[in-house]
Amino acid sequence: MKKALAIDVGGTKIYGAVIDEKGEIKSEIEKHFTPKTFDEIISLFKDIISRYENEVDAVAFATCGAVNNTNDGILGSTGNIVKEYPSANFKSLSSKPVFVENDANAAAWAEHITGASKGMAYSVMLTLGTGVGGGIILDNKIYKGKNGAAGEMHFKIRTDKHRKCTCGAWDCFEAYASGTGLKKTAEEITGNPEITTYEVIENRERPVMQKILKAWQDDILTGIISLANIFDPDCIVLSGSMAEFADIEYLEREANKEIVTTPFKVLRASAGNYSGMIGAALLALGVK
Amino acid sequence: MKKALAIDVGGTKIYGAVIDEKGEIKSEIEKHFTPKTFDEIISLFKDIISRYENEVDAVAFATCGAVNNTNDGILGSTGNIVKEYPSANFKSLSSKPVFVENDANAAAWAEHITGASKGMAYSVMLTLGTGVGGGIILDNKIYKGKNGAAGEMHFKIRTDKHRKCTCGAWDCFEAYASGTGLKKTAEEITGNPEITTYEVIENRERPVMQKILKAWQDDILTGIISLANIFDPDCIVLSGSMAEFADIEYLEREANKEIVTTPFKVLRASAGNYSGMIGAALLALGVK
Repeated sequence: MKKALAIDVGGTKIYGAVIDEKGEIKSEIEKHFTPKTFDEIISLFKDIISRYENEVDAVAFATCGAVNNTNDGILGSTGNIVKEYPSANFKSLSSKPVFVENDANAAAWAEHITGASKGMAYSVMLTLGTGVGGGIILDNKIYKGKNGAAGEMHFKIRTDKHRKCTCGAWDCFEAYASGTGLKKTAEEITGNPEITTYEVIENRERPVMQKILKAWQDDILTGIISLANIFDPDCIVLSGSMAEFADIEYLEREANKEIVTTPFKVLRASAGNYSGMIGAALLALGVK
Repeated sequence: MKKALAIDVGGTKIYGAVIDEKGEIKSEIEKHFTPKTFDEIISLFKDIISRYENEVDAVAFATCGAVNNTNDGILGSTGNIVKEYPSANFKSLSSKPVFVENDANAAAWAEHITGASKGMAYSVMLTLGTGVGGGIILDNKIYKGKNGAAGEMHFKIRTDKHRKCTCGAWDCFEAYASGTGLKKTAEEITGNPEITTYEVIENRERPVMQKILKAWQDDILTGIISLANIFDPDCIVLSGSMAEFADIEYLEREANKEIVTTPFKVLRASAGNYSGMIGAALLALGVK
């Protein structure tokens, strides 16, 4: 069975593992903090690759940042990683075929092949973490747009310039539906600037926290309705660390009441914590 | 050269014309008011078809309502036309091949083949009229979603339940960016419930009308930014009777400042008033 070395590159951590064409992890998972300099990042990549290169058929990167349509480089800047990172020459890192995809796109592919949206041709995945990642599968293919940057969940859900998003614009879906958004909503409702997402979650039986979670979830609902009206998808999949605090049944029921398109499902992701690496490996190995 | 009989079916009017594979109109354009009963509509279709059937290679419908993915029938209800209309059996109306597409999708195809978005693989068309129609072209194909209903411009741009949309939900883009939306915005700004879209347009040199048009246009800008972040398109095309009152240069410049995807164009439609019929004819004749 074919295998790929998958490397997940985030702003905080870099993971690595060998994954087979069934999407199964076949090695220990290497975990590293993301180095602060470009040279150290490249050295880490080379180091990981040198240890697994001989036993795999391909090297797959699931990375932060938008990835181009030839799946070998990154478009523009990528936020919380050293600014030279987008200039990385991934192909040069291995003598094996190298395949690069955005981490959210890769995770959506893992769900599509092995997880919650398996067998469904049209799905939108929302990764609810510190931010919100988006991965769109249309007609059984990752949708990337003209240059590869598509699927950004920076559509606006307010017009009154209420909350600034990390992207610099006002009132993006990400600024409300993310963990950071939950904290901001908690600040607004409690008036306490020190409140943390953790406190909201830990005390979620208390009425005020229920109110905060309801407001956060209704912002997610707004986004889900919008995406369903635009895409007429089979499903919208929620993944990421914050997804477990969303009420899937509520979101599916309420969204289906409002849409003008056809009924769809809201599902929780099931491909696991390493879906980015799994999806990238499946893509690198050509598993459709 | 191949030709199709194209029939445009709206809630108010039904048009018909012979169109060739270059998208040129080759007959007088028939114009009828949309009959009030289902039987009269079907009779009108048969009447038009009987007069042109022998000289064409196909019959093409550009219709209100969402059209299925086999392009032969309508999904669900369609608003302002008799409620039995979606049950129409289009294939049975002619011995020639019959092709049915949603009017906004057909118009987007006309722009893609002969108009503003010619040569661009990824475009989103917004038809600004009484409502807002949407047509999405991805990778040189009309994007229809799992059942054909995709491209509805009912994504939400507010979360405070401010304005009800014709679809029954709150705060859809359509409720703000449409001509009806402009009237509502004018009512809110002037406090005059009698103000008409026509008055705003006629008196658009006056400061209050400028303010109204600015508010309306900024809602359109919100939608354009959202769509560009989701789709990473080559362009967004504005068509419809209200499009001429939008400042294309302003929208393109401001949207490109805010998006996290890659630069795109905002263009005015150029395939003309009959782009729905032209697009449907081109689709029926297989022109790509």
